[in-house]
Amino acid sequence: DGGGVESLDYEVVENFAYREEQAQRGKLYVSYLLVVKWFFALLIGICTGLAAVFINIAVENFAGWKFSVTFDIIQKSYIAGFVVYVLINLVLVYSSVYIITQFAPAAAGSGIPEIKGYLNGVDIHGILLFRTLIGKIFGSIGSVGGGLALGKEGPLVHTGACIASLLGQGGSTKYHLNSRWFQVFKSDRDRRDLVTCGCAAGVAAAFRAPVGGVLFALEEVTSWWRSQLMWRVFFTSAVVAVVVRAAMGWCKSGKCGHFGSGGFIIWDISDGQEDYSFAELLPMAIIGVIGGLLGSSMPCIHFNISHFIWPAFFCSKDKEYNDLATIFFNTQDDAIRNLFSAKTINEYSSQSLLTFLVMFYALAVITFGTAVPAGQFVPGIMIGSTYGRLVGMFVVKYYRKLNIEEGTYALLGAASFLGGSMRMTVSLCVIMVEISNNLKFLPLIMLVLLISKAVGDAFNEGIYEEQAQLRGIPLLESRPKYEMRNMTAKEACGSGRVVCFPRVVKVSDVVSILRSNKHNGFPVIDHTRSGEPLVIGLVLRSHLLVILQSKVDFQHSPLPSDPRGGGRSIRHDSGEFAKPVSSKGICIDDIHLSSDDLEMYIDLAPFLNPSPYIVPEDMSLTKVYNLFRQLGLRHLFVVPRPSRVLGLITRKDLLIEE
Amino acid sequence: DGGGVESLDYEVVENFAYREEQAQRGKLYVSYLLVVKWFFALLIGICTGLAAVFINIAVENFAGWKFSVTFDIIQKSYIAGFVVYVLINLVLVYSSVYIITQFAPAAAGSGIPEIKGYLNGVDIHGILLFRTLIGKIFGSIGSVGGGLALGKEGPLVHTGACIASLLGQGGSTKYHLNSRWFQVFKSDRDRRDLVTCGCAAGVAAAFRAPVGGVLFALEEVTSWWRSQLMWRVFFTSAVVAVVVRAAMGWCKSGKCGHFGSGGFIIWDISDGQEDYSFAELLPMAIIGVIGGLLGSSMPCIHFNISHFIWPAFFCSKDKEYNDLATIFFNTQDDAIRNLFSAKTINEYSSQSLLTFLVMFYALAVITFGTAVPAGQFVPGIMIGSTYGRLVGMFVVKYYRKLNIEEGTYALLGAASFLGGSMRMTVSLCVIMVEISNNLKFLPLIMLVLLISKAVGDAFNEGIYEEQAQLRGIPLLESRPKYEMRNMTAKEACGSGRVVCFPRVVKVSDVVSILRSNKHNGFPVIDHTRSGEPLVIGLVLRSHLLVILQSKVDFQHSPLPSDPRGGGRSIRHDSGEFAKPVSSKGICIDDIHLSSDDLEMYIDLAPFLNPSPYIVPEDMSLTKVYNLFRQLGLRHLFVVPRPSRVLGLITRKDLLIEE
Ligand SMILES: Nc1ncnc2c1ncn2[C@@H]1O[C@H](COP(=O)(O)OP(=O)(O)OP(=O)(O)O)[C@@H](O)[C@H]1O
Ligand SMILES: Nc1ncnc2c1ncn2[C@@H]1O[C@H](COP(=O)(O)OP(=O)(O)OP(=O)(O)O)[C@@H](O)[C@H]1O
Ligand SMILES: [Mg+2]
Ligand SMILES: [Mg+2]
Repeated sequence: DGGGVESLDYEVVENFAYREEQAQRGKLYVSYLLVVKWFFALLIGICTGLAAVFINIAVENFAGWKFSVTFDIIQKSYIAGFVVYVLINLVLVYSSVYIITQFAPAAAGSGIPEIKGYLNGVDIHGILLFRTLIGKIFGSIGSVGGGLALGKEGPLVHTGACIASLLGQGGSTKYHLNSRWFQVFKSDRDRRDLVTCGCAAGVAAAFRAPVGGVLFALEEVTSWWRSQLMWRVFFTSAVVAVVVRAAMGWCKSGKCGHFGSGGFIIWDISDGQEDYSFAELLPMAIIGVIGGLLGSSMPCIHFNISHFIWPAFFCSKDKEYNDLATIFFNTQDDAIRNLFSAKTINEYSSQSLLTFLVMFYALAVITFGTAVPAGQFVPGIMIGSTYGRLVGMFVVKYYRKLNIEEGTYALLGAASFLGGSMRMTVSLCVIMVEISNNLKFLPLIMLVLLISKAVGDAFNEGIYEEQAQLRGIPLLESRPKYEMRNMTAKEACGSGRVVCFPRVVKVSDVVSILRSNKHNGFPVIDHTRSGEPLVIGLVLRSHLLVILQSKVDFQHSPLPSDPRGGGRSIRHDSGEFAKPVSSKGICIDDIHLSSDDLEMYIDLAPFLNPSPYIVPEDMSLTKVYNLFRQLGLRHLFVVPRPSRVLGLITRKDLLIEE
Repeated sequence: DGGGVESLDYEVVENFAYREEQAQRGKLYVSYLLVVKWFFALLIGICTGLAAVFINIAVENFAGWKFSVTFDIIQKSYIAGFVVYVLINLVLVYSSVYIITQFAPAAAGSGIPEIKGYLNGVDIHGILLFRTLIGKIFGSIGSVGGGLALGKEGPLVHTGACIASLLGQGGSTKYHLNSRWFQVFKSDRDRRDLVTCGCAAGVAAAFRAPVGGVLFALEEVTSWWRSQLMWRVFFTSAVVAVVVRAAMGWCKSGKCGHFGSGGFIIWDISDGQEDYSFAELLPMAIIGVIGGLLGSSMPCIHFNISHFIWPAFFCSKDKEYNDLATIFFNTQDDAIRNLFSAKTINEYSSQSLLTFLVMFYALAVITFGTAVPAGQFVPGIMIGSTYGRLVGMFVVKYYRKLNIEEGTYALLGAASFLGGSMRMTVSLCVIMVEISNNLKFLPLIMLVLLISKAVGDAFNEGIYEEQAQLRGIPLLESRPKYEMRNMTAKEACGSGRVVCFPRVVKVSDVVSILRSNKHNGFPVIDHTRSGEPLVIGLVLRSHLLVILQSKVDFQHSPLPSDPRGGGRSIRHDSGEFAKPVSSKGICIDDIHLSSDDLEMYIDLAPFLNPSPYIVPEDMSLTKVYNLFRQLGLRHLFVVPRPSRVLGLITRKDLLIEE
C-alpha cells in the first residue's frame, strides 16, 4: 500500500536562505558546480569499474579454485568430488545469505526495482547505505561464486547507485568516513543525477556495454531525464569501460590469479552467420512468442531461504552427463559462450537442451525468490538461449539449404526471454548487440523484442514493476491512467481538511500539529493588510523539525519579523536544512522542548518555499498527473479558480538573451 | 527576432466537444488509436526507407553514368573529359538550385534546424508540405549527384518528417491526394509524435543506423520525450533498416543499374586495428582539440547561389593528381571508404592530404551557405577524416613499435569534427560505431567527442542551433538561463493590459478585438453569482475564427446558454477545430459578416480550454521555464497568489488502481 515509504523532494525550495546563498555565490559558482559534477561523474565511473573488477576477480578465482579442488578429488572418486563441489557451493551461497540476512537486509534481491523506485521519487529506507554497498558486493560474490542461477548486473547497478550516493554525501556518516569537502550535493535533486550516473555505470560495468548502460538508465530506470544529464551519464559509462579494460590488460600478466579476459558478460559471436533469409522470419517470430510467454510467466515468488533445498543438482546428472556438464560445470559466462557458439551445429542433443531448459527455469524461479543479491539478466539469457538453440536445431533441419547457425537462434532466444520478462526495448537491444559484438543481427533482435514485449504486455507488467509492487514501492508510470480523464484535481485529493500553518505560529501549536498527523508538507496562510487570507507558501515537516531542534529562531512576539532586516537568516545556512541521505532524519519525538520554549513563537516566512506549483481545482487529473510526474513533484496545491489573469507567458517571454 | 513564427500548441483542449467525444468513444478507442499509431509508424518506416533507396539509386546511377561518359572522352582528350565532367556536375547542381528557388523554397538547406524547431514547438510555414517533400527529394538528388561537398542525411531527416506529417494528415490537401480515412491525428500533439518517428527514420535510412536514429531523435531533435514514444520510434527505425536491406538485396540482381551495396553511408572498418595503447591517447586528444576548433569555426554564412562560382575544381588538379583523384573522382562514400581504409599505411602523401583538407574545408563552407538541400554529416566526415589521417601518419612515424592503422585515426578525426560542429554526443557516438561496424573503438570515439565538444562549447553553440538562430527559429533550450533565477513570472510577461473575453461576447467585439492584436490565446472571464470575476478558461484565436466563419453558434440573447442542454455542441465535431497542418489557417480578414451577424452574441463556454496551467505571480522564472518547457506549453496564465488551498496532491493521490 506504500504507506511506509516517503517521497523524495525534487523541488528547489526557494526560501530566503537559498536566495541569499545564490546571490552570494553568483555565476562563477555555477561553473564551479559544473566542474564538480563532472569530477563526480569521473569518480563514480572509476569506483564502479573497480568494484566490478573486484567482484569478477573474486568470482573467477572462487570458480577456479573450486574446479581445481574438485578435479583432484574426482580423479579418485566421482561421488566424493561431486559432494565436495556441492558443499563448496553451499558454503558460498550460505555465506552470502548470512551477509544479507544478518548484516545488510536492504541488499537483498536484484536492487533494480529499488533503484528504479528511488529515481521515480520514492525513498526506500536503507538502500543507499554504506552497509548495503558492502553487503551487496560480498553477497553477490558469494551467490554468483556459489553457482546460483543468477547474474551480477542487478547487484552492480545497485552497487553503482550506492557508490554514487555515498560519494555525493561525502562518505558514510555513520562510519565517520565522510569528508566535508565532498559535501556539495545536498538536495534530492542533485543526488538523483548522481544515482542515475551510478546506475548506468553499473550496467556498463556488467556488460562492458557503455551505450547500453546509458540507454538502460534512460529507458528503464529514470523517470525524469534531461539532455545535459545524458552526456554526463555517457561519460561515466565510458570511464567504466576504460577502467575495466585497463584492469583486464593488467590482469593478463597473470597478477589476478584465475581472472582472465572473461567474467564480464560478453559473448563475442562476430564470426557467426553472415546473412539471413526472409524464410527464417517465421521461426524467429515463434521465438519471440515463446519469449513473451515464458518471460511474462516468470513469477515473483518470495521464499524464505531456510526452506530452500537444492535438489536439482542431484537428479538427472548421470543420464546426459556430457552435454549438461558443459553447461553446469562451468561458470555461467562460459556456459553462455558455449550456447551462443557458432559453427557448432548439433553440439547439443535436443533432449539435453530440453532437460536443461526445464531445470534451469525451475532453478531461476527458485533463486529469484531468495534473498541473495541476484541479477535476472544472466539466467534470462541462459533460459532464452536454450530454447532459442532448440528452435535453431529445428530450423537447421527444415531449411537445409540455408547457411544457418544455431548460435544466432540462441542469441535471439535470449533477447526474446529478456524482452518478455523485463519489457525493455531499445536498451536491451543495444546491450545484446554490444555483448554479442555483432551489428548484423540488430533488425532481427528488434523483431524478436517487438513480438515478445507485445505478447508479454498482454499478460502482465514487466518483472521490475511487478517486483516493485510486491515490495510496496509505489511507482508513478509515465502514462496517466485512463480513469483520470474523468476526474478532477479536487476529487483526487479528497475532502479532508487541509492542515495549514499561520505565518507566525506558537511553538506548542507546531508540536501538536506535527504530532497529530503524518503529513510532510503544509501550506502557510497569511493575511493581507485588508484581512483577506493569502497562501504564502509551503513549509516542510523536515524544516520545521530543524527549526524546533535548533531553537535559535524562536521569538517572543507573535508579530512577523522583517525577513530582510537583521541577522535572522544567517543563523542557518542552507546545509542545515539539507536532508540526510540515508538516515530517517529527526523525528518529532526526539525533540525536547521546555515549557518556556513552548510559549514562544516562530515566524515561518524565511523558511517556506514561497511558490510551490499550483493547479486549479477542476483541472482534469490527466493534466495534473503530467505536471506532477514531468516535474518530479512531491506536493502540489489545489487552489480555487483565479479571479484575474495578471499576464500570459508565451515562448516570446522566455527567450531572454544572456 | 522570431516575430513571424507562431508556436505549436501541445495542450489538450479539454473543451465540451472534446469531452463529449471522449465519453462517446470510451476505452476501446484508446486501443484503436494505439493500433493506428503503430500502423503509422510502420508506414512511415516503409515510405522513408523507399525514399532513401530511391535517392540512392538515382545518385549512384548519375555517378555511374557520369563516369562512363567522362571515361570515354578522357581516353581521347584529358581536358575535354574534365570539362564534360564539370559541366555535367554544374547542370545537376543548377537543376537542384532551380527546384529549390522556383518550386520549393522551404526545402533549402539541411532541414534539421527546421525540424528541430518544429519539435521544439515552433511552426515554420511550409516545411512539412508535399511540395517541400518533392523539392527535397529531387533537390538532393541533383546536389549530391552533382558532386557537391554535402551529404544526404539532413535532407533525409527532413524527408522523413514530411512523409510522417503528410501521412498523419492523410495526404496533401492542396493536391487532393488526401483521404479521410487517414485523418486520425488532428492535434499538434499527435503530429509531433509522428514527426519524431519520421526524423529518426531519416537518420536510420541515411546511415543504416537504427539505434543511432533513435538516439538522434532523442538527443538532438525532440524536446519532449516519453518512453512510450521511444519504443515506437525504435520500431520505425527498424522497419527502415529492413526495407533498405531488402531493397539492396533486390538490387544485387542487377535490376537497379549502377546501384550496388554502397550509397548508404556505411564504411565497414571492422578489420582495422585490433588494439590501442595508452600512449596513443595523447594524439587522440589532439584530434579532439582540432575537431573542436575546426568544427566550431565552421561558419554559417548565407550566399546567394547566383554569385556562386566553382573555382576550386580548376586549381591544383595536375600537381597531385593521383592522390586527389581517388578522393575527388569518386562518389563521396567511396572517398571516405578510402580514407578510412585499414592496412594502407602511406597510401596518401601528407601534402595531398593537407591540400585536400584546405580545399574541402573551403568547399564545405561555400556549399553550406548555398540554397541546395545539404547534409553536414558527410562533408564533416570527409574533413575530419582527412586531418585525422594526417595525425595518424605522424603517430605511425613516432610510435614505430605499435600496431597502428591510419584508418582508425581517420575515424576519430571524423568523430571529432562532427562533435565539434554539431555537439551531439551519445547519438553521434552510436552512429559512428554503427557506420564503421566496429565496437572496439567506442571508448576512443567517446574520448574524442568529449574533448571536441568541450572545446567547441567554449566558443559558440552547435551548428544546428546557430542555423536556427540565423533563420529566426526561437528554440527553447532545455536549461533555463541563469538570469531567470532573479526574475518572477510577473516580470517576464510584462505590464501590458491582458486582452480578455467575457463569457458571452458580442460578435462585433470579437472581430474588433481580434483585429486589434495578434495574440493567439485569450483568457475568458465570467462572473460568479455574487458578481465576483472568475477566470473560466482560455480561448484560442483559431477556434474563434472557426466559430465566426461557421456562424452556427451565434445567438440573439446576451445570456449564457446551458452548455449541457440542447444540441449545441453537436453543431461542431472536434475535427472542425483541428488545426490544418501546413496552411496558415483562416485569417480574420477572410471572414465576412453581415451587420446582422455583428449584432449577435456568442457563448464561449463550450469552446474554451477550461483549465490551462497557471503559475502564481511571484514564482521564479526558472520554475516557470521548467514547467513551460517540460510540458510543451504555448500559453501559461500568471495569476495572483491564491487565498485558499483546497487540498494537496501527493504521490498517494495519483496511485489509482485501474
Ligand atoms: N497538509 C495536508 N493537509 C491535508 N491533507 C494532506 C496534507 N498533506 C497531504 N495530505 C493528504 O494526505 C494524504 C497522504 O499524504 P501524505 O501525508 O503521506 O503526504 P506526504 O507525506 O507529505 O508526502 P509523501 O507521502 O508522498 O512523502 C494525501 O492524500 C494528501 O492529499
Ligand atoms: N491575451 C493576451 N493579452 C495580453 N498580452 C498577451 C496576450 N497573449 C499574449 N500576450 C503577450 O504578448 C506577447 C507576444 O505574444 P504573442 O501574442 O505572440 O503570443 P501568441 O501568438 O499567443 O503565442 P506564440 O507567438 O508563441 O504562438 C507576449 O509577451 C505575451 O506575454
Ligand atoms: Mg507520507
Ligand atoms: Mg505570436
